Amino acid sequence: MSDKHIASVFDRDLETIQAQIMKMGGLVEESILKAAQSLEERDEELAESVRSADIAIDELEDLINENTARLIALRAPAAVDLRVILTVMKIASNLERIGDYAKNMAKRTGVLVQMTPINGSYSALRRMAREVQLMLKDALDAYIQRDAELAMDVIHRDQDVDQMYNALFREFLTFMMEDPRSITACMHLHFIAKNTERMGDHVTSIAEQVVYLVTGKMPEDNRPKGDQTSVDVALGKV
Amino acid sequence: MSDKHIASVFDRDLETIQAQIMKMGGLVEESILKAAQSLEERDEELAESVRSADIAIDELEDLINENTARLIALRAPAAVDLRVILTVMKIASNLERIGDYAKNMAKRTGVLVQMTPINGSYSALRRMAREVQLMLKDALDAYIQRDAELAMDVIHRDQDVDQMYNALFREFLTFMMEDPRSITACMHLHFIAKNTERMGDHVTSIAEQVVYLVTGKMPEDNRPKGDQTSVDVALGKV
Repeated sequence: MSDKHIASVFDRDLETIQAQIMKMGGLVEESILKAAQSLEERDEELAESVRSADIAIDELEDLINENTARLIALRAPAAVDLRVILTVMKIASNLERIGDYAKNMAKRTGVLVQMTPINGSYSALRRMAREVQLMLKDALDAYIQRDAELAMDVIHRDQDVDQMYNALFREFLTFMMEDPRSITACMHLHFIAKNTERMGDHVTSIAEQVVYLVTGKMPEDNRPKGDQTSVDVALGKV
Repeated sequence: MSDKHIASVFDRDLETIQAQIMKMGGLVEESILKAAQSLEERDEELAESVRSADIAIDELEDLINENTARLIALRAPAAVDLRVILTVMKIASNLERIGDYAKNMAKRTGVLVQMTPINGSYSALRRMAREVQLMLKDALDAYIQRDAELAMDVIHRDQDVDQMYNALFREFLTFMMEDPRSITACMHLHFIAKNTERMGDHVTSIAEQVVYLVTGKMPEDNRPKGDQTSVDVALGKV
């Protein structure tokens, strides 16, 4: 009876933390989309809202870290429960990093509105951001539903994001070589593309945690590395 | 008597994990230096050794994660001990990221040896890497000695690294504008500079954890942001 009571208190505490993770995930998803939209529409006000959302995201991570530490200290969870808690902490840490990249993207909007737009790149960047946001949504769903298959699907989709990045990298190189006046803008756009690719890596890391949580094994790291093509570009292969 | 026994077992387990953290830190320090050296001396063999060291670094992180999880599950540590364990996990995670950046730098060495060297940049990159390695050494010493003052010193020194990055960013922009044939090489060098700056951010994050561990408070985030100058550059302020 007493055991059951303790278990249910643990579950309730865990549910509170999971609700916080979902809230944090929702804010991060929104930030990714808004950052890309602010860039495409040259909307500085929208960019500013991403920067203030990042404060809320950071606060949620602090709260989740406090709550998980308290949960471990008070309830001394057994192996399985502990694994869930450690997964939650890692997911929160990955979400915080993705939020940082979105903030950084929004920050560059303020710079890029001062410059001549680079043809077509903004919509490509927005498609890339949209793909990452959808992957994040699925990775969080996979966590809640303990769905290793969905998590594996997210991991595989990261290759599409890597390919989008590689295509943009080539495009920016061409722009810069054709018109040196575009170099500064292209450097910023290239950073945004690279940071979006890194968001994808963090989403993949969340999905890997889910696979580990459900199956007890980390998925094999056999996907091609994200910036291989940019190495090929450098070697003159394209 | 029984309590004392439990405490000493906990301390012994923790010491084992701390020895693993120090080993991991040593490997990461070495990788930072070797990666920068391989770049400057165009030494592909040295670059390759950084890539294999990264495997050992990743394995150490896995080991530390397993050992900390086991320690929490077996010993159900009280608040203070738990804080130490969670700090150790965060330090391991930061070290793993720094190792990844060093590996990425080494990987680009293989690409850059195929291109005409960019005057002077390699030694500047090496000085930057050297500064980050010294900061990391001090951050880990601050952890072992529970020295919040040394940790704060590390946090402040990150500004120097940010300044070195900003100077290099300006230099690369100038090179690219003067000679479009240098664009590809400069893009890679710029990535290396940015990744080294990010290594500094991770070292700072370790130092902040130490401050939190010793004082119970996170240091105020009032340092200027790393890429402010590159924003200024873009706005034509330099």
